[in-house]
Amino acid sequence: MNAPIEAVRKGEAERLRIRAGNFTGPTTGLAPGNVQANLVILPEVLAHDFLRFAHANPKPCPILAVSEKGEPHFRTLGTNLDIRTDVPRYRVWRDGELVEEPTDIRHVWRADLVSFAIGCSFSFEQALIEDGIEIRHITLGLNVPMYRTNRPCAGTGVFNGPLVVSMRPLKPADAIRAIQVTSRFPSVHGAPVHIGLPEVIGIKDLSRPDYGDAVQIHTDELPVFWACGVTPQAVIAQAKPSFCITHAPGSMLITDLRNTQLTIL
Amino acid sequence: MNAPIEAVRKGEAERLRIRAGNFTGPTTGLAPGNVQANLVILPEVLAHDFLRFAHANPKPCPILAVSEKGEPHFRTLGTNLDIRTDVPRYRVWRDGELVEEPTDIRHVWRADLVSFAIGCSFSFEQALIEDGIEIRHITLGLNVPMYRTNRPCAGTGVFNGPLVVSMRPLKPADAIRAIQVTSRFPSVHGAPVHIGLPEVIGIKDLSRPDYGDAVQIHTDELPVFWACGVTPQAVIAQAKPSFCITHAPGSMLITDLRNTQLTIL
Repeated sequence: MNAPIEAVRKGEAERLRIRAGNFTGPTTGLAPGNVQANLVILPEVLAHDFLRFAHANPKPCPILAVSEKGEPHFRTLGTNLDIRTDVPRYRVWRDGELVEEPTDIRHVWRADLVSFAIGCSFSFEQALIEDGIEIRHITLGLNVPMYRTNRPCAGTGVFNGPLVVSMRPLKPADAIRAIQVTSRFPSVHGAPVHIGLPEVIGIKDLSRPDYGDAVQIHTDELPVFWACGVTPQAVIAQAKPSFCITHAPGSMLITDLRNTQLTIL
Repeated sequence: MNAPIEAVRKGEAERLRIRAGNFTGPTTGLAPGNVQANLVILPEVLAHDFLRFAHANPKPCPILAVSEKGEPHFRTLGTNLDIRTDVPRYRVWRDGELVEEPTDIRHVWRADLVSFAIGCSFSFEQALIEDGIEIRHITLGLNVPMYRTNRPCAGTGVFNGPLVVSMRPLKPADAIRAIQVTSRFPSVHGAPVHIGLPEVIGIKDLSRPDYGDAVQIHTDELPVFWACGVTPQAVIAQAKPSFCITHAPGSMLITDLRNTQLTIL
């Protein structure tokens, strides 16, 4: 899939700015309309099990690209893209412990690392907003509320854990439309996995999310639940790999692809 | 759209049986997989306003075909199809009063009549069942529960009234899948119009439907509401046209089209 030239220019411009150290914050709103990705970097010895985990759990862990071993590039996501420098802030993990939050990972790069770009809900949220649907946490300037469910992911090797979901309160007609719109985006979590009835998936109190911020649900709204990219992060944290690098929350990899290019219909 | 030859044979065989007077009951289960249609026949003087009503309210009133004036055929729905004889049982209305329930309407046929074939939920229910989704009222052998809502249809001429919805209780994941599946069938009511929260659309008691039979909703299920073909029937009853013919409830016009031919995706 080739990105339109304007999207390539926008994506590259932001990555160069970040690469030069001139931007270290969250990437919301940068290169609007371009796909932003979650980043997971693991030693080759764990890469196959992690990719199997993603394959077995495509809704929480939709893979946009996998790098060649040791190569800091995603050739399909951007021509001038360096995984080691183009994310504003990273997290370096050793034995499951967060040891560093650098803005560049060239000093810890290794020849055995495999990188994974994972789809992010920013892409479908843009489509919902353009459809006139209010996204509560964005209106309020908060993080999306996220919850651990009672539904286990399909485990592979050391990677096991519950499905984590994000929640957006929507009026019923908007919820139906949101299901239609997000069904077109399977590579960024796709259709919701649950709607209404939080207790059925083990969520006891919507006002106390496990990650992110609580948002109000009005009496004419239903909570709508999407599989969430925090799932692979939580699963990796639980697996405590000897070495791992991820993006810092909200500080994503900006690609050259357009969100609209991810739609299947 | 051409129907497959096997579907044409199945549809024609059932219509010939009905035409010969050898079948006068409900058509559920006849010519499985073939589209069945609601039938409305009005004098030409009302036909344009009714078609405008359908155009303005496509979810409750999806038009599959409109006949030429005085011609008892739907050329796109079946080659050997006679509107006057091929429905097992009709209802003849004068000034809004039901005056007759004949099995043949040749004796009341007029040169100024225009016929409308309107999509029916049988088509999408088949798709849901083939997808493994339980449809409660079918499991129980009952009529689908239907409710008058507080939402007015867009009125045209004498045709005015509230949206009527049918309700099917579904588990949340099945509800999401049902929204995807029925979105593919816009010509037979399409996606639901509402989910959960019956009070928001003016339904006070789900156990007391305005038409059809009540069905139980389990604690792990949501009520899912589709726009219903009873809407145009209720609107016509309220308009009290001097003359009108419809099919009798459950006694539909069997066409040559396959349900799968109605999908847009």
